[in-house]
Amino acid sequence: MARIAVTDGMDENAVNILEKYGHEVVLKHYSKEELLGGALCDYDAVVIRSATKLTKPVLLASINEKGGVSFIGRAGVGVDNIDIPVATENNMVVCNTPRSSTHSVVELTIGHLLTSCRHIATGDRLLREGTWAKKQLKGSELSGKRLGLIGYGRIAQGVGNVAQSLGMEIHAYDPYLPPKIASNNNVTLHSDVNAVFSMCTHISVHCNLTDETHHLVNEDRLNLMPQIGVDGTHCGNHIVNCARGGIVDEDATLSALESGKLTSAALDVFETEPAIGNQLLNHQNFHGTPHIGAATMEAQSRIGQEMAAQLIDHFNGQRPHSALN
Amino acid sequence: MARIAVTDGMDENAVNILEKYGHEVVLKHYSKEELLGGALCDYDAVVIRSATKLTKPVLLASINEKGGVSFIGRAGVGVDNIDIPVATENNMVVCNTPRSSTHSVVELTIGHLLTSCRHIATGDRLLREGTWAKKQLKGSELSGKRLGLIGYGRIAQGVGNVAQSLGMEIHAYDPYLPPKIASNNNVTLHSDVNAVFSMCTHISVHCNLTDETHHLVNEDRLNLMPQIGVDGTHCGNHIVNCARGGIVDEDATLSALESGKLTSAALDVFETEPAIGNQLLNHQNFHGTPHIGAATMEAQSRIGQEMAAQLIDHFNGQRPHSALN
Repeated sequence: MARIAVTDGMDENAVNILEKYGHEVVLKHYSKEELLGGALCDYDAVVIRSATKLTKPVLLASINEKGGVSFIGRAGVGVDNIDIPVATENNMVVCNTPRSSTHSVVELTIGHLLTSCRHIATGDRLLREGTWAKKQLKGSELSGKRLGLIGYGRIAQGVGNVAQSLGMEIHAYDPYLPPKIASNNNVTLHSDVNAVFSMCTHISVHCNLTDETHHLVNEDRLNLMPQIGVDGTHCGNHIVNCARGGIVDEDATLSALESGKLTSAALDVFETEPAIGNQLLNHQNFHGTPHIGAATMEAQSRIGQEMAAQLIDHFNGQRPHSALN
Repeated sequence: MARIAVTDGMDENAVNILEKYGHEVVLKHYSKEELLGGALCDYDAVVIRSATKLTKPVLLASINEKGGVSFIGRAGVGVDNIDIPVATENNMVVCNTPRSSTHSVVELTIGHLLTSCRHIATGDRLLREGTWAKKQLKGSELSGKRLGLIGYGRIAQGVGNVAQSLGMEIHAYDPYLPPKIASNNNVTLHSDVNAVFSMCTHISVHCNLTDETHHLVNEDRLNLMPQIGVDGTHCGNHIVNCARGGIVDEDATLSALESGKLTSAALDVFETEPAIGNQLLNHQNFHGTPHIGAATMEAQSRIGQEMAAQLIDHFNGQRPHSALN
């Protein structure tokens, strides 16, 4: 039976499942100093979210001649806080839970699109300030417009399905996608990302942050957007990012909001988080949320269950289904 | 050729269409005193929104021995600002544009549901105040929950379709609906409104305001709501009203937010509008918009076109398709 450190919290049901299988679960956050001092040596596995950083020195301090951590679980998707090559060299398997938060991010993305185009956050803010801004808040429908999806993985596909039910036409760019997926979903897949910007008044970002995608949404591409919907409506241009900060160039976004090239921008993720003092927050046509794509009861519950299942498999001698190395 | 007074504005394209058909369109707002003084006598038709009140004395002042207004157009849906019996007695046909704003209200309703359950307006407000409230803003998915629709006309049916694409199960109450409509849409239609409240964690209002529906959403019915989703999630109870103010009892709503019986409430319409100083606006789990259900470019364009078509038909001697009397 294994001893498991859970350093950034985990859903209660998942802890119960692990204990039912005979594992010992210790819910405890460790400081950087404690981690470097070998605090994880006494464990067989560690489950983190984003707060715990498993750098090379931390990983090397987490094993000794008697054993140590053989399983690293990331309860969530992004593994940029884990030195995976070092984990691999030291026979530690790294797993994440890539599917559990998909639908929560889909719903947040649709919520941001509608909030942008109907001024919901702005209307609420003005009401609280004592202004009945009915006449200033004329918006536009999503129906009849083209939605451009940057990346067309699970989340983007889910967004596309709901957006179609709202009457949108879906375009996507994803150089890493098997073409048959697009042909199955009544979606136009483009091999040139600029074509998506040229054709779509609404763009939503659903790719990973890499050197290739850093500032993919920049001034030049924002300038390509058509301002007028394919249905003839002067709806302006709209950008949503619920993926990772840094894919959208925030300086270019603010300039485009100021010049009117963008009619709205909505971000759940920022180049620097927490996004306190970010200049976008002063613009009336911007709205944001604090990286809450996976912050639902359902996503956290599924993440816990998916992680528990992988821990149980690992200590049964099986390869976890989302092993990354 | 007719002379048409447009007192509360109309979409530019609609004005162009009417002029192309040879009609004279005068865009001018009249005060109550001017209306009572017979300002409309010189017109054959008047097109209003909600700002102009066509009371009995105003209508009687709008005709004389030489003729006067024979067509009253309401660019929108609600006709509570027109004395229809008096119009009928005086051979004035009254028309509205009931279908033109349907999809705009559908999209706003879905936007309010998502904004409520994912704290989008709250997250934005806190960010602007300098607080990164990621941990406090855990929400819940719409997927897997039951949505109760009070009224199941065109708007509610549209909301139901999109909500199904998000993974919701649809329940509805509408005593005036032919049962076959519900059976066509994979919706459970209830003959007892209380059953909808008892079964659904999410309720959206889509009926008219009448004596029967005034305060239909009240303390007793809010108390029936189950707090726990049919998928087992402790998502709490959520109310949205984009129909008419007065159907939701605002005092009961505020009490339920304070006691936690309601986890969120979102209103686009209020018992008193403009809703300035409304106590709900101080509650962190409330958000509102200033009656913007039809406030989109597309809805206003369709309303104008639908109204122009009815004016053209009327002055061609045909009965307008949305004549109400």
